[in-house]
Amino acid sequence: MNKLTVAACELCDSVGGQALWQDELCRVVLVEDRDYPGFCRVILNRHVSEMTDLDQTTRQRLMRVVFAAEQALRQLMQPAKINLASLGNQVAHVHWHVIARFADDKHFPGSIWGEVRREGVPRRVDRDALRRALQQLLQLEEV
Amino acid sequence: MNKLTVAACELCDSVGGQALWQDELCRVVLVEDRDYPGFCRVILNRHVSEMTDLDQTTRQRLMRVVFAAEQALRQLMQPAKINLASLGNQVAHVHWHVIARFADDKHFPGSIWGEVRREGVPRRVDRDALRRALQQLLQLEEV
Repeated sequence: MNKLTVAACELCDSVGGQALWQDELCRVVLVEDRDYPGFCRVILNRHVSEMTDLDQTTRQRLMRVVFAAEQALRQLMQPAKINLASLGNQVAHVHWHVIARFADDKHFPGSIWGEVRREGVPRRVDRDALRRALQQLLQLEEV
Repeated sequence: MNKLTVAACELCDSVGGQALWQDELCRVVLVEDRDYPGFCRVILNRHVSEMTDLDQTTRQRLMRVVFAAEQALRQLMQPAKINLASLGNQVAHVHWHVIARFADDKHFPGSIWGEVRREGVPRRVDRDALRRALQQLLQLEEV
């Protein structure tokens, strides 16, 4: 528990989205965001607030999953850009945002936390295909 | 070169801030942001737009530097939170933002790309101490 942690942590208490993949270290969920269908989170299972609170091996294992999520989103959606972020100012429990961005989305080229630039163009992602892509990528040695 | 890259890339053409550390892969610079004195960028030296355009070993080497920057900022500034992000929607050349956040800064607990919440409290960072901390951390095997 650290100074930013309230007694109840929503990422300790709930999955945090639609589960796509998981192991003993972390889980990948699909965020239910109408504007950002290709928005995954990679959430550490235990409550730790900073990446440097983890040892190097654990950090590498977690980043491997983050990069697999990036790769899966690129394969399925061909986004203009991938955005990766670990912020945690509101929920200080390590979690990575992995977001497929498009030139016609709601905030592009700003961050999704910035100013709205336009009404976003609706898009969909095939969840099952995303699950399969993640599964496949994370079975490989080199992701 | 990809579809988001314009002929001139500002991270190919300039250092991108005050150099703190560098090797053949990447450089760490201090961003000159009055509101965020503890704001570093880790910039890949070559022009690549996504982390998954790099091989696993190169990604790990780059993340090691990102985490060293996080650790150095934590040691020197004791921030409430570290924010890490690789966005690149405007400059599609891999670079990581590593930002020391404080409860009384301009946007906390939002992201620095979001709504202004207050006038930030002025703070300073000792650049030479930051340089030394990075140097020291990156000499170690385990960062």
